[in-house]
Amino acid sequence: MTMIEIPTAIHRADDDLPWVDIGDGSLLKVLQIKEREGLWVIRNRFMPGYQVQTHKHTGPVYAFTTTGAWRYKESDFVNRAGSFLYEPAGSVHTLECIEDDTQVWFHMYGVNLNLDDDGNVASVSDGRGTYDAYIAMCEAQGLGTPDVVTD
Amino acid sequence: MTMIEIPTAIHRADDDLPWVDIGDGSLLKVLQIKEREGLWVIRNRFMPGYQVQTHKHTGPVYAFTTTGAWRYKESDFVNRAGSFLYEPAGSVHTLECIEDDTQVWFHMYGVNLNLDDDGNVASVSDGRGTYDAYIAMCEAQGLGTPDVVTD
Amino acid sequence: MTMIEIPTAIHRADDDLPWVDIGDGSLLKVLQIKEREGLWVIRNRFMPGYQVQTHKHTGPVYAFTTTGAWRYKESDFVNRAGSFLYEPAGSVHTLECIEDDTQVWFHMYGVNLNLDDDGNVASVSDGRGTYDAYIAMCEAQGLGTPDVVTD
Amino acid sequence: MTMIEIPTAIHRADDDLPWVDIGDGSLLKVLQIKEREGLWVIRNRFMPGYQVQTHKHTGPVYAFTTTGAWRYKESDFVNRAGSFLYEPAGSVHTLECIEDDTQVWFHMYGVNLNLDDDGNVASVSDGRGTYDAYIAMCEAQGLGTPDVVTD
Repeated sequence: MTMIEIPTAIHRADDDLPWVDIGDGSLLKVLQIKEREGLWVIRNRFMPGYQVQTHKHTGPVYAFTTTGAWRYKESDFVNRAGSFLYEPAGSVHTLECIEDDTQVWFHMYGVNLNLDDDGNVASVSDGRGTYDAYIAMCEAQGLGTPDVVTD
Repeated sequence: MTMIEIPTAIHRADDDLPWVDIGDGSLLKVLQIKEREGLWVIRNRFMPGYQVQTHKHTGPVYAFTTTGAWRYKESDFVNRAGSFLYEPAGSVHTLECIEDDTQVWFHMYGVNLNLDDDGNVASVSDGRGTYDAYIAMCEAQGLGTPDVVTD
Repeated sequence: MTMIEIPTAIHRADDDLPWVDIGDGSLLKVLQIKEREGLWVIRNRFMPGYQVQTHKHTGPVYAFTTTGAWRYKESDFVNRAGSFLYEPAGSVHTLECIEDDTQVWFHMYGVNLNLDDDGNVASVSDGRGTYDAYIAMCEAQGLGTPDVVTD
Repeated sequence: MTMIEIPTAIHRADDDLPWVDIGDGSLLKVLQIKEREGLWVIRNRFMPGYQVQTHKHTGPVYAFTTTGAWRYKESDFVNRAGSFLYEPAGSVHTLECIEDDTQVWFHMYGVNLNLDDDGNVASVSDGRGTYDAYIAMCEAQGLGTPDVVTD
């Protein structure tokens, strides 16, 4: 038998996985992808004015904010330190950061269908693509090849 | 407290949910959708020549075939009675039915990104849209409003 | 980079995975386990009188019956050819087979907490244990080592 | 049609859900349970010396630590601010808090099988039971009835 023993847990310390600059001072860290499940777990540090194109999720998403403030243009609530956000599959929204050093943890299933003004799918963001970009940016920025959890 | 007691199980007999004609004699039955999870559970009865446009899955898919034969144009294997098929999130393929009365059970997470010849997303098929179409076709075909499991 | 390319699909024909005798003529086939997810996909062929101890599920379960008849002692409905059964996490029941050659497909998350008459956990059945038992029984019955999907 | 429109997202601010004292100054907040999926999302504030009995998970668990320090007795690593921990289904461990004000976010599928010294299941902790206890403790401590997300 060649099956792997289930470990007690797989740990990544804060310093194990670097922050990469994704433009204008906003930062990204990819913690884990389960490509075959469609799961991606990431952390973001957004700067004010950072926006994420209107998108529709194909699976559920869970977000936990630890500093700063951000919102969806479609909603009244503001995510601040300690906020929990649940986004069911099928939900559609447009993210904008409104305070400095806004840190968010995202646990996401499926993909982001990025929508144009007519509601058509202009592009798709997913865990594997985000992982590939993270690895490439880390290497390009001299941060080495990060050991993202890839089960 | 208003939370619902967990039932021991929710059952649908074969006759509880009708087959609807989706064109050229191919049939569809929707058993369950969990819209917020992105889950859809359906049954198909395909006729020879039935095709499903090349698509990419955003979540994992599990298929069990009970009669007939079908294949993916991208693969050598043929699904026949008793075949099990696992499609990881991210997989891409083009279904074609090759024998009469091909019955398949699909347990699917996420959506189908239907791809054009250039690999762009031409349209999206999902559980909620399939459910809505099933309800509408049942009503239009005089089959009543089927009691699909919608948790 | 060492990440595996996502395949278009992983197929097992009916004959690829043997039925093993689990006592009194009832048969089992394990199709797939995702151990780290807690997923197990199996097929059963039950004989009349076959029972499964009262158990509670820790994740959701989906069952599709293709021949024969079986029921839960706690419920009025009977699963027959074409029946779909959804068992939410937390559901509790006692299976009994009531007709010859009762074939059922189970797609299961989590474990079975097998309960004694006082409702205490007497034992636990899970995907990995069932997989290990299936492999061992196949080898003991001269059926070789089956190539269960183990992602 | 009575199906609910998918909301853009469901938000709970930090103050929307109170911390309850679970003994010796350690605190708990339940953010969401999806009972039928077996999902529970909680936050803990542990005090040094707080321990969680050795347990086995029946589904995968994801933990994110924001302050303090804690560890598993079975492992060498220590969870500190920014640590990510992935616990596959089937993993077994014994939690102990080692610093003041240790705050952890847990995203958990399935149940904790609490094990005695012989490895037998002594008790079971799950999302619904934790939710019920949280509601009851909030009410007993004069904190009102918290509006946990219960989809």
